[in-house]
Amino acid sequence: MFSSIHLIADATLATESVAQAVTAEQLQNVGLTASNIWMLVSTMLVFIMALGFACVEAGFTQAKNTVNILFKNTVDLSVGIISYAWFGFNLMYPGEFNGIFGFAGWGLSLPEGYTSLGYAGGAYTYWTDFLFQAMFAATCATIVSGAVAERIKISAYFIFTFFLVGFIYPVLGSWHWGGGWLSEMGFYDFAGSTVVHSVGGWAALAGIIAIGARKGKYVNGKVIDKPGSSVPLAVIGVFLLWFGWFGFNGGSVLSADPESISLVLVTTTLAAAAGAIGGWLGGYIAFKRFDLGMVLNGILAGLVGITAGADQMSPNEAILIGIACGVVVVFSAIGMDKLKLDDCVGAVSVHLTCGIIGTLAIGVLGQKAGMSQFITQLTGVAAYGAVAFFSSLAIFYALKFTIGVRVSEEHENEGLDSHEHGIRGYTITFDN
Amino acid sequence: MFSSIHLIADATLATESVAQAVTAEQLQNVGLTASNIWMLVSTMLVFIMALGFACVEAGFTQAKNTVNILFKNTVDLSVGIISYAWFGFNLMYPGEFNGIFGFAGWGLSLPEGYTSLGYAGGAYTYWTDFLFQAMFAATCATIVSGAVAERIKISAYFIFTFFLVGFIYPVLGSWHWGGGWLSEMGFYDFAGSTVVHSVGGWAALAGIIAIGARKGKYVNGKVIDKPGSSVPLAVIGVFLLWFGWFGFNGGSVLSADPESISLVLVTTTLAAAAGAIGGWLGGYIAFKRFDLGMVLNGILAGLVGITAGADQMSPNEAILIGIACGVVVVFSAIGMDKLKLDDCVGAVSVHLTCGIIGTLAIGVLGQKAGMSQFITQLTGVAAYGAVAFFSSLAIFYALKFTIGVRVSEEHENEGLDSHEHGIRGYTITFDN
Amino acid sequence: MFSSIHLIADATLATESVAQAVTAEQLQNVGLTASNIWMLVSTMLVFIMALGFACVEAGFTQAKNTVNILFKNTVDLSVGIISYAWFGFNLMYPGEFNGIFGFAGWGLSLPEGYTSLGYAGGAYTYWTDFLFQAMFAATCATIVSGAVAERIKISAYFIFTFFLVGFIYPVLGSWHWGGGWLSEMGFYDFAGSTVVHSVGGWAALAGIIAIGARKGKYVNGKVIDKPGSSVPLAVIGVFLLWFGWFGFNGGSVLSADPESISLVLVTTTLAAAAGAIGGWLGGYIAFKRFDLGMVLNGILAGLVGITAGADQMSPNEAILIGIACGVVVVFSAIGMDKLKLDDCVGAVSVHLTCGIIGTLAIGVLGQKAGMSQFITQLTGVAAYGAVAFFSSLAIFYALKFTIGVRVSEEHENEGLDSHEHGIRGYTITFDN
Repeated sequence: MFSSIHLIADATLATESVAQAVTAEQLQNVGLTASNIWMLVSTMLVFIMALGFACVEAGFTQAKNTVNILFKNTVDLSVGIISYAWFGFNLMYPGEFNGIFGFAGWGLSLPEGYTSLGYAGGAYTYWTDFLFQAMFAATCATIVSGAVAERIKISAYFIFTFFLVGFIYPVLGSWHWGGGWLSEMGFYDFAGSTVVHSVGGWAALAGIIAIGARKGKYVNGKVIDKPGSSVPLAVIGVFLLWFGWFGFNGGSVLSADPESISLVLVTTTLAAAAGAIGGWLGGYIAFKRFDLGMVLNGILAGLVGITAGADQMSPNEAILIGIACGVVVVFSAIGMDKLKLDDCVGAVSVHLTCGIIGTLAIGVLGQKAGMSQFITQLTGVAAYGAVAFFSSLAIFYALKFTIGVRVSEEHENEGLDSHEHGIRGYTITFDN
Repeated sequence: MFSSIHLIADATLATESVAQAVTAEQLQNVGLTASNIWMLVSTMLVFIMALGFACVEAGFTQAKNTVNILFKNTVDLSVGIISYAWFGFNLMYPGEFNGIFGFAGWGLSLPEGYTSLGYAGGAYTYWTDFLFQAMFAATCATIVSGAVAERIKISAYFIFTFFLVGFIYPVLGSWHWGGGWLSEMGFYDFAGSTVVHSVGGWAALAGIIAIGARKGKYVNGKVIDKPGSSVPLAVIGVFLLWFGWFGFNGGSVLSADPESISLVLVTTTLAAAAGAIGGWLGGYIAFKRFDLGMVLNGILAGLVGITAGADQMSPNEAILIGIACGVVVVFSAIGMDKLKLDDCVGAVSVHLTCGIIGTLAIGVLGQKAGMSQFITQLTGVAAYGAVAFFSSLAIFYALKFTIGVRVSEEHENEGLDSHEHGIRGYTITFDN
Repeated sequence: MFSSIHLIADATLATESVAQAVTAEQLQNVGLTASNIWMLVSTMLVFIMALGFACVEAGFTQAKNTVNILFKNTVDLSVGIISYAWFGFNLMYPGEFNGIFGFAGWGLSLPEGYTSLGYAGGAYTYWTDFLFQAMFAATCATIVSGAVAERIKISAYFIFTFFLVGFIYPVLGSWHWGGGWLSEMGFYDFAGSTVVHSVGGWAALAGIIAIGARKGKYVNGKVIDKPGSSVPLAVIGVFLLWFGWFGFNGGSVLSADPESISLVLVTTTLAAAAGAIGGWLGGYIAFKRFDLGMVLNGILAGLVGITAGADQMSPNEAILIGIACGVVVVFSAIGMDKLKLDDCVGAVSVHLTCGIIGTLAIGVLGQKAGMSQFITQLTGVAAYGAVAFFSSLAIFYALKFTIGVRVSEEHENEGLDSHEHGIRGYTITFDN
């Protein structure tokens, strides 16, 4: 390693004796060390959300398509990270880096004018910044895969993902987090209810419209249940997403400031827990049973809902947002089915519906509440929605009329695994 | 965010030049930043124990009850967190907060007289304290669910959980951790072998007695095996519990003191590993086979056993405690079956039996060993046992003679999933 | 706890007023607190790799052998940790500790001349050091289990593991990390492409040769597919390994130096993502399908490949190494099958082949590139290979001609679970 333990050693060397006074610079180095640890822990937690999405989506979709959905989620993450390194990072923060394309040049040198240690007000390094942002971008991509599962053509899917992670997400992200027009206007979205989740949700909705419902999903006005392969797998996924969300929101403080990060984790947790209760109630009202799927989606709904204002809400406001999102997500999913919009895992209801609720809540609850803030929030929601939805729709229709976006009927019936991947997701036999 | 990176920036602003000396207050702020990170990492690890319990219990119970057990674990965690926020936290630490009910009032303001940054000797914030404690409380609840699985009525279960997490656990917790009579007497339980695990274990035992064994479990003096749905799921659960226990014990240091937290993680790890070996030996002696279930319960047994003295034991004493608990847990489980006490996942043997062993071990091994300490430990074990067991039994019997605690025989035969939840845990078919 | 929060409190007590200046020693204590947190987080991440290996191996092997492979992985970790505590740690770092056997004596006292806080240049404690190294050693053992799964005799397996973790791994480790001859020669292996992964890979290869292929794997010149029980389980495993590798490589910085640890996490991530793409391409070229197994092994291949130089490579060099390893691992696996070397999970191709590539890459790319470095790397690879392979082969053949290394044909056909363990890995029925 090239500079291991030098910070701590420096503190010693710079003074003639350990009993001597230290300088502010030495203290800042130790502060950076601590803060950077938090940011990297958060980054790793956001990473594990990719596994969370993979598990939720594989758990909630049919066993004949398990390998396909896992393939998409795994490759999504990988392609997302590489394309964010090569294009997205510079596109999203255009004011800060030299040139549009290329990540930090081709060597170990940093962009001109940057020293790694002096970066971000001393709270983390340039490399940490890239990695945290890259994990966010990859998250956005995986939202789409579950919604359009079980019938999308894999080539079309990957072309769409490339555009979403490489261009749509970073350009839209720059509006708010890159210091663009919405940030100047006072729009507030702490960790991405709109910037990440609703953008992914709009893209998912566009895909659902362009591709159409699964065969046999809506028959004679009835919604036919297509049970997922494994409920335990979905539960693992939701808990991992909750776990990862601690990093998603906690890392969005962009330092380890003790009061901020601990409050953010409290509001995040309470909204998730309240979302579970909201989903429980909503599911019981709608279906007269203890619907675990709705409890799980309620947790995700609460998490998406608090993301815009995790640092703005009191504990009880967080609970309120969580319960609201948990109840609404149930009826949003029912509404989608009424409109024959076939979303295999409820991704649009979770990420889009609750992303909007959470973003608007900034104008109603918490420290920024007020009519003018509400209107600003509404403007942001509308602007993001218009561009994310129509640009996604344009790409999906362009693909539809060229390479096609949907597998053949035979292929859909038999399952995507046997056609594209040549193996099955589960082989639970005890034969010789 | 309202105060991001201000600590680090403050250090700069307060001095005219980075070469100038810094004050003790500035250093304390950086120390708080570091220590608070550890406490939040620990909190997140305790959170993931909830997933660990869900996986263990779903893995070790029958496939026809998978959704039910997952539903309980998911809702437990969520209801536990919310009720701890509203009631438990203040009940458990009555001397410290204003009023009995209500968490930090209804806004962002802290209890009177508290500043977030000056909290807990400068080691973590008020919000961190709540969240870490809330995760502990939620853990206590999940211990019961596995023991009484496959036949308990879901409404009775949730009413019991509400009393356990909202009242029994915090009141009993206050005896030791809230500065109550047992702490004044010198009782020692570092991270909760008794305060958390045996309390949960006593409640589980009370439930087993009140509800009775599963149909067909004990037939003509024989114990009928009811194989769980998925051994891999149980393995995932046990490893996640071990992983989470690093936070359970490591966070109980209540600061990031390097020597303490690293020693605690060493003793925790060695006891878990030794517990596996103890369970292996015990299982081989008892059943003449390599019994993976016993190895897994041995790990948990070792973890429960070391929890009371993780900061008091040397590495080799930790290994001794781990092996003892690993062997004993096997014979405790066999004894339970002899008494026709039907514990689906061995929760009583793991949490109660080994919680007692670990608590008493404080008087025999480690830095506090001695006869008077042993008697104090015994007193604590007995006091906790009496109140936890009989108050739980009272609630379970009150439920039994009112709404009932057990599902119908038909319902039990067909599985709880199809009745209460309307879906199956696994749908592994490859049909069209 | 014996010293909780004393560091932070000391800073206050040592000065008469919080406005007074602090000393370098006080700053070092806070720096140690921060750095030690990172090392413990890394340690916990390496721990979770054991679960990753268990899931990958159980997912990729047949359902009739699931319990067996999980048993091995669980016990491996536990026996590995205990034997490293008793023998391995002192063997590996012989210059540093008193005596050959015994871990830190039998009490809480540290080796003579060591104070916990002054350890490792102030970056972490003695206990942290042990635990981080113990998790590494346990990792090495689990590499073998997947390769020789489904036919190895369990007693032979555990005897081999004991020698590998207790002796071969620590003695070979001391050559480089213990300050031995290879480290003096300038050999560079940052986190163990050779020291950990290729050593495990050579041992696996020796086992495959000594034990022979599974019955029915190679029939009339054809390779017969033996599908694993659960692809989702394998995906969970690979993601957990990637997650854990952040600690494996990030912790190998041996401090929380912000620039080093963040760069190491960037190169690790990019190599893994590029490895996925390499495996995708390789699998498509070789099999004309979207082969998820190859994508997953590509991720592991990229991770193994970057491990030797994670702190030496630029982001784009990391991508290059990842893609190369991802493609090569596919053809290595095909080559193994051509030679009728039956590796159930591709462990040799991942850990040995890519361990060698990564180690040699130090001489070709990055900050140390050069002909003389390349020759040094080649020397190290050859020396490790010769000793690891032949000593493993000797042990396996000694076992073969004494207790035997292979189960009976009947036993293999019926599956190891029903014979050795008496339960099945999955029981997914909904009967009464």
